[in-house]
Amino acid sequence: MSNFWIDYPQVLEELTTVKSIIKKNIKTSEKHFEESIAPFVEQGGKMLRPAFLLLAAKFGEYDEKKMYNLAATIEMLHLATLVHDDIIDDSEMRRGVETIQSKYGKEYAVYVGDFLLCQSVNMISKYDYKMDKMRKISKAIRNICMGEIRQYHFRYIRKVDIRKYIRIISAKTAALFVLSFSIGAEEAGCNESIVRLFGRIGYNIGMAFQVIDDLLDYTGDTEKLGKSAQMDLKQGYYTLPIIFALEEDKNREIANILEKESFDDDDVKKIISLIKKYGGIEKTKKVADRYTKRAFENIDKLPDCESKDILKQIVEKLIHRNY
Amino acid sequence: MSNFWIDYPQVLEELTTVKSIIKKNIKTSEKHFEESIAPFVEQGGKMLRPAFLLLAAKFGEYDEKKMYNLAATIEMLHLATLVHDDIIDDSEMRRGVETIQSKYGKEYAVYVGDFLLCQSVNMISKYDYKMDKMRKISKAIRNICMGEIRQYHFRYIRKVDIRKYIRIISAKTAALFVLSFSIGAEEAGCNESIVRLFGRIGYNIGMAFQVIDDLLDYTGDTEKLGKSAQMDLKQGYYTLPIIFALEEDKNREIANILEKESFDDDDVKKIISLIKKYGGIEKTKKVADRYTKRAFENIDKLPDCESKDILKQIVEKLIHRNY
Repeated sequence: MSNFWIDYPQVLEELTTVKSIIKKNIKTSEKHFEESIAPFVEQGGKMLRPAFLLLAAKFGEYDEKKMYNLAATIEMLHLATLVHDDIIDDSEMRRGVETIQSKYGKEYAVYVGDFLLCQSVNMISKYDYKMDKMRKISKAIRNICMGEIRQYHFRYIRKVDIRKYIRIISAKTAALFVLSFSIGAEEAGCNESIVRLFGRIGYNIGMAFQVIDDLLDYTGDTEKLGKSAQMDLKQGYYTLPIIFALEEDKNREIANILEKESFDDDDVKKIISLIKKYGGIEKTKKVADRYTKRAFENIDKLPDCESKDILKQIVEKLIHRNY
Repeated sequence: MSNFWIDYPQVLEELTTVKSIIKKNIKTSEKHFEESIAPFVEQGGKMLRPAFLLLAAKFGEYDEKKMYNLAATIEMLHLATLVHDDIIDDSEMRRGVETIQSKYGKEYAVYVGDFLLCQSVNMISKYDYKMDKMRKISKAIRNICMGEIRQYHFRYIRKVDIRKYIRIISAKTAALFVLSFSIGAEEAGCNESIVRLFGRIGYNIGMAFQVIDDLLDYTGDTEKLGKSAQMDLKQGYYTLPIIFALEEDKNREIANILEKESFDDDDVKKIISLIKKYGGIEKTKKVADRYTKRAFENIDKLPDCESKDILKQIVEKLIHRNY
């Protein structure tokens, strides 16, 4: 689960329980199947979404068993989207582990993602949550799909403007953060204004998270980060740093490189330096800061408690990851 | 909707309503997206699963609106699996229309299938069905995934025996027929023994349907059918006719061809004639007949009514499609 939660032993313990529920739910009669997805589940990443769900639930009545199952469901959904995203992006590694699509082929990965998606629906239908939970969840996944479809559709279109970018990331990333926070609060019986407040917290954290992710593609100076930017550019995904830079690219310095049949490492370096020159990095940082600020303003409105403090610290840590 | 229902104007009318619900549910704010899946939905195939659901529901209290929505949900689920199957099988055409994966790429098709899957969950959560409906549906989709995964896993394994084949098709095909019949009857308030009876009817029809499908790959003498067999063999999917034939292939006549790096039209013709020689066709027909017989025995146990007569005729038509 990486070292992200090392200072929060209670959260870490709860996330370990959540992970054990996920592991139980990938067990099937087909041994080979379980073995193929176990390393992916085992590695697990930061498990932000289930953590946020549980933290929000602590503002109400906390029914452990129900909450852990709900948190596992949300993480399972997230895993399903990752497996399918890796197919699209042709990714070889994720979280230090070879991706399912790379190890077993894209065909197999399609079914693994489908299985995880169905299994998450199955998990939620086992408990007596109200049907409106199901509706919220299915809406969120629908949103994620639409965000990905939009993103895919706008590939290679250099006229993608900020508005379209915001729409894409609010669907593909923020939607699941909104769901995690608000469904946790709602299931714990928090009143409507708290649930809505958590929705806004989720939205702003999710947006800040994605903008920073897209920023790190261009600011990280390690080989790995450069590679990520290169992949995005080659696949025609234009994120905020380049969108901002293109607005100032009057002499078509960036545009001309992007129009080349293929571009090499030097081209990518050139693009990155042009993005810096045209203020793409600075402007993107400002956008991230704006979402972060709003997230903190909303968190401040929550009633004081330990979970509020943890939430603040975590968001701080997340937001200042690397830049 | 093909001419399959031409003699049953009432069923045809109801399926047209079901289709219009599906069309409404693929509408999104992204025009391009709707346009890309509309032809696929429009063509529509036989719509067997929603038809069976509605026929079963007529044995109880028939709440039109609820039933049409449920039928549309099941068909949507089926469409989702087809879109993903076409990725795996690299199919260019389906129902006379270019497949989504062929026209827009495999990446796009992954998301389209995901969208349809989520949207079907969304559709069911809009009505006040009980959560156990959701559980049944998610279990059925999970089964379908597992069937496909199993089938994929056993590719190129010539030791696939009849038992494994039965397990694969009972999950990948029969499960959705079982669900369609039994959920229709259950939602209409039929008693438990009728619901269970419909489950058996669905199972036997589904099994017969798939066995006949696999048989037609080898008995149809049109170019198209030959091509389908060729594709299956090349991709390493061994169905009942070849499984039976391999049991008698003592001199490894078939096995030697299958082991070749690639095989041409003549090889496929040779395999087909060897399958005939070794009784693969006859034995497969017998299996199909056994399931068909059981389906009719079960249908006979239903209370007499118009829907029962229609069901009998439809199954007759379906079973005797082409051989």
